[in-house]
Amino acid sequence: MGKKKAMTYANLGVSSQKEDVHAAIKAVDKGLFPSAFCKVIPDIMTGDDSKCLIFHADGAGTKSILAYLWWKERGDVNAFKGIAQDALVMNVDDIACTGLVSNFTISNTIGRNKLLVPGEVIAAVIDGYQEFVDAMGKLGIAMYLCGGETADVGDLVRTVVVDSTVMARGPRDAIIETSSVVPGDAIVGIASTGKASYEREENSGISSNGITMARHAVLHRDYVAKYPEIVDPAVDKDLAYAGPYHVDDAVPGTSVAVGKALLSPTRTYLPVVKDLLSKFATAKELKSSIHGLVHATGGGMTKCGRFGSGVSYVKDDLFEVPPVFAMIQSAGKVAWDEMYKVFNMGHRLEVMCVPSFAEEVISAARRLGISAKVIGRVEKAAPGAGNAVIVRSRGRVFKYRSE
Amino acid sequence: MGKKKAMTYANLGVSSQKEDVHAAIKAVDKGLFPSAFCKVIPDIMTGDDSKCLIFHADGAGTKSILAYLWWKERGDVNAFKGIAQDALVMNVDDIACTGLVSNFTISNTIGRNKLLVPGEVIAAVIDGYQEFVDAMGKLGIAMYLCGGETADVGDLVRTVVVDSTVMARGPRDAIIETSSVVPGDAIVGIASTGKASYEREENSGISSNGITMARHAVLHRDYVAKYPEIVDPAVDKDLAYAGPYHVDDAVPGTSVAVGKALLSPTRTYLPVVKDLLSKFATAKELKSSIHGLVHATGGGMTKCGRFGSGVSYVKDDLFEVPPVFAMIQSAGKVAWDEMYKVFNMGHRLEVMCVPSFAEEVISAARRLGISAKVIGRVEKAAPGAGNAVIVRSRGRVFKYRSE
Repeated sequence: MGKKKAMTYANLGVSSQKEDVHAAIKAVDKGLFPSAFCKVIPDIMTGDDSKCLIFHADGAGTKSILAYLWWKERGDVNAFKGIAQDALVMNVDDIACTGLVSNFTISNTIGRNKLLVPGEVIAAVIDGYQEFVDAMGKLGIAMYLCGGETADVGDLVRTVVVDSTVMARGPRDAIIETSSVVPGDAIVGIASTGKASYEREENSGISSNGITMARHAVLHRDYVAKYPEIVDPAVDKDLAYAGPYHVDDAVPGTSVAVGKALLSPTRTYLPVVKDLLSKFATAKELKSSIHGLVHATGGGMTKCGRFGSGVSYVKDDLFEVPPVFAMIQSAGKVAWDEMYKVFNMGHRLEVMCVPSFAEEVISAARRLGISAKVIGRVEKAAPGAGNAVIVRSRGRVFKYRSE
Repeated sequence: MGKKKAMTYANLGVSSQKEDVHAAIKAVDKGLFPSAFCKVIPDIMTGDDSKCLIFHADGAGTKSILAYLWWKERGDVNAFKGIAQDALVMNVDDIACTGLVSNFTISNTIGRNKLLVPGEVIAAVIDGYQEFVDAMGKLGIAMYLCGGETADVGDLVRTVVVDSTVMARGPRDAIIETSSVVPGDAIVGIASTGKASYEREENSGISSNGITMARHAVLHRDYVAKYPEIVDPAVDKDLAYAGPYHVDDAVPGTSVAVGKALLSPTRTYLPVVKDLLSKFATAKELKSSIHGLVHATGGGMTKCGRFGSGVSYVKDDLFEVPPVFAMIQSAGKVAWDEMYKVFNMGHRLEVMCVPSFAEEVISAARRLGISAKVIGRVEKAAPGAGNAVIVRSRGRVFKYRSE
């Protein structure tokens, strides 16, 4: 085998920054708080001027392909339960970053290839939604499954797409505007790995973004021959499932199966954010301590760069790279600057706060069994240069610019 | 060419009745009004006991493949604007059948293969949503675009999936329970063809269901060779795009291009239902005249059979079969009983009402430029036999049973 091509997101047909999508929607109204983490709209359902709505859509992306593979190889359809959690948490944890942490209404959409994906898979997805909603309910976080749609669209969908849409409603004055971050703020990272008190298994740290790269970097092309439905035939043959691993192999340095690690359901940080917000009697007090919450999914460590003005996010004490991400990097020979741009690399929630509040944030996470620490700080950016994200890690410095 | 295989939905990988999906979700809570046309849930957003919510998901299904084909062949990206209307109307017209006809909040989800579907397509879809929402706004029907998600998922999606999710809120006592139909009711059909006063072009009558059959029955396999991304390779080669037509050919008996006719955007009946409901001072009065509204999409003429108890829907004076459906039947040698089960066959809204109110319904439609007529009536079913749908058409009788 010759020199291996480096794997980038662009040559796998994915834009981690979605430049053309942002261009396509640039004329779309930005809502009440353009600098909040999600689009916030007036409460047009009731007309109450003191309230607002967030209507949010996301899904498990191509992680459903991993569940499909695991199910085909191992006969274990329960992997699809985690996919429901993925589709849901990618929504609700975004919404949590605006300060709304309960009363979520949920609709789900499944698009499947009926020739390959039978009713038992649909049932597992639906069960997964119900189990997650029940578990959150026990923690005082109310979520309601309101129904959904399953479409048989084999000419469009190779295997199965699992999406969900979530609406939340709350008082306008509770909304956290992420752009309130200022130079001097501490950045607390809340770990994506380990086992939270409300989880049943260790989490590898992976979420539902970056999965196209993870699949192709890590998994063996044996699977393409066996299941041609798991890949776009237009993807460069040298890059498609060009990895060394099978789903039963262990992730280097661990005893966890590669398939399990890649399928680890996206952790929700809702209990952490709920606990944090409960410390404050008023929204004003809250905002004097917490300046921004960032859910570091698509865009990874660079995602925060979209918020604030004239600021530089300096991250110089990240968590140790979790084994699942080290495996992806090494197997795909992915450049480190690309890794930080695509994956969360150890923490998926960032709390930008006054430095004196950092210890409270760390304690809140630890009480729920999750590691947390100050991973960096907000500095003033060079004049006229827009925002920057600077990652110092592994003896190197990675600089990213945002408009 | 030998004897042509008859085309059925089952052998194309689509279940028009979705038996396995209904089995998968049978344990799911049915909401406040199990016999309403959509699932209706308590107003958990505000806790107001007099109000309710509907959270509804649907999409353009494989009609987006037709837009893709038209765009590739003709360079006209505007076909994707109609796809946005399709994705939206498949939702809002279902909701209208519960009696809620305004104040819709909308979220959209697009899943695309980025290697094939560039930003200009996404922009056309977003523009299409905006144009439709603006047009409805001029008729006093309020809709709000609340944002959405575009995912690059080429390993899952061959071309592009366009879905939307809609929430509506209204008073509980306004909800029409479709199961209120009784023997003796008239069935008024509101035409799916022609040009309504609020439309810019003649509508062929097609909606966003049955499109898998329409594509394969009508279009020529030249397109498979040219665009292999428009078909699931697992579909029977004898059935895939086994039709005689190219997109520029005229639909027999018309001067309309086949591509245009198949892409005709799903008509909304919102203005008709809004006008009908406005005739009543109270919900009680309304329900004494209108017993049920049925949006005849998936399941076609048989869809009404799911509602009511011990009733037989006798449809013996349907509209003349519109040319687009006649073309599909003839090109695919589709059995007529299958045609009535998959397509609307000339009317896509059914109003079940006391016979004395039928003339009012017909007038309401005609004022908006749409044909309408009594197409049948509700009778008592044979004891113990469940519901039935009986279509008498073209000198034949087609009987369908529902549980």
